[in-house]
Amino acid sequence: MSYCVGLKLDKGLVFMADTLTNAGVDNISQYQKIYSWSEKGKAQLFLLTAGNLATSQAVVSDLNGQGAVDKDLPKGILSVPNMFQAAKLAAETLRRAIVDMQGEGQEATSAFDVTMILGGQIAGGDMQLFLIYPEGNFIEVSDDQPFFQIGETKYGKPILVRAFEKNLSFEAAVKLLLVSFDSTIKANLSVGLPLDLYIYQKDSFDIFHKTRISGDDRYFRELSRTWGIRLKDAFVELPDFEVSNL
Amino acid sequence: MSYCVGLKLDKGLVFMADTLTNAGVDNISQYQKIYSWSEKGKAQLFLLTAGNLATSQAVVSDLNGQGAVDKDLPKGILSVPNMFQAAKLAAETLRRAIVDMQGEGQEATSAFDVTMILGGQIAGGDMQLFLIYPEGNFIEVSDDQPFFQIGETKYGKPILVRAFEKNLSFEAAVKLLLVSFDSTIKANLSVGLPLDLYIYQKDSFDIFHKTRISGDDRYFRELSRTWGIRLKDAFVELPDFEVSNL
Repeated sequence: MSYCVGLKLDKGLVFMADTLTNAGVDNISQYQKIYSWSEKGKAQLFLLTAGNLATSQAVVSDLNGQGAVDKDLPKGILSVPNMFQAAKLAAETLRRAIVDMQGEGQEATSAFDVTMILGGQIAGGDMQLFLIYPEGNFIEVSDDQPFFQIGETKYGKPILVRAFEKNLSFEAAVKLLLVSFDSTIKANLSVGLPLDLYIYQKDSFDIFHKTRISGDDRYFRELSRTWGIRLKDAFVELPDFEVSNL
Repeated sequence: MSYCVGLKLDKGLVFMADTLTNAGVDNISQYQKIYSWSEKGKAQLFLLTAGNLATSQAVVSDLNGQGAVDKDLPKGILSVPNMFQAAKLAAETLRRAIVDMQGEGQEATSAFDVTMILGGQIAGGDMQLFLIYPEGNFIEVSDDQPFFQIGETKYGKPILVRAFEKNLSFEAAVKLLLVSFDSTIKANLSVGLPLDLYIYQKDSFDIFHKTRISGDDRYFRELSRTWGIRLKDAFVELPDFEVSNL
């Protein structure tokens, strides 16, 4: 399992993903799940993947223009004219990669499925954020709830729903993501530190900020501790339910 | 989907369950998911079920002594001498009910699985709380985390993990459950109001409190509203992450 989130703010895009992959609890490794493609001044794309690692890598290699699945795509994802075409290409590549792996050889005990978030901006168009399904279709983020989660999404959703706003600053958005990831990491062993963070500022066609946040990051540790205390305080201060003997 | 929780406090047991059942989003009904059996001064048992409704009802009918599955159990679950035997009987009945339904006739498109929480006390023994799997085995609650959730458990888990303590009052425990259910209901259409609440006081061998909390319950509405505000306030007050241009 993984946990990845993409937010579309008024100011730009913010992406966060954990880095733990596992094939059973006795076989864990650390892999990056955020990929990016840049052409200065023209295009900046980000892809987040949750699911089968082999499928993810095949898709990325193809989008890099290395033709793992499709040899006729030398320029990769940077060859497309707009974000919609980028999403279509990524989705199509994903669908073919899955079909490819299912085709022959031994049957696998687990599925080859991958779900992806694709976001970015290509010169001449707006920033866009897409969710791509393993079936090869995709949706764009809505204005009402402009974020996507993939992987282990449930534990971290309540705080996103309550506190997300489009006009958040990058600083507050990262804080929100860290709280959401903290709740998930506390509940699910298969989502783990460190976390990768990428920030894109609207119309910049470049990466604005990029960090890896590890378990001994002081801000994250302090946030996790303080959030736990505040949450408990907020809970304790709410009026109790009245229980009377029946 | 359902959402049911059983808490084992120092003072007693608290159970809460939603009442929505659905076969697709276009076929919803309201059914009770908490069942209880009493023998004044001798035994008080509670059973919570999440999963296939037909299986649940077959199990309950059997535990009532009506022999849906096993005709040789005229006294039902109240005939057992202790809580462990009660869990064993409920688990065995569940396993047989599932096998029974899978046996013949048309194949179903969805599984007949049910997961259950069984809790209570029988004279001569302590209060106990069990989680019963569709496979027919079961576990008892641990001292470290003395609660069980079944059904749609993920959205409502973070607050339980953060705020649950064994020495909570009944009043605070119900408040905690309502916050956990509120987060779940906000995120998942298939968990719905009203909520059933049962409280058992240690060594009483009787139901202490029993209520149905509906959507227009003033306390619940106020709790939901206030919790949202407090959560957001607590979030806003946390220090922001520092973002610098790369």
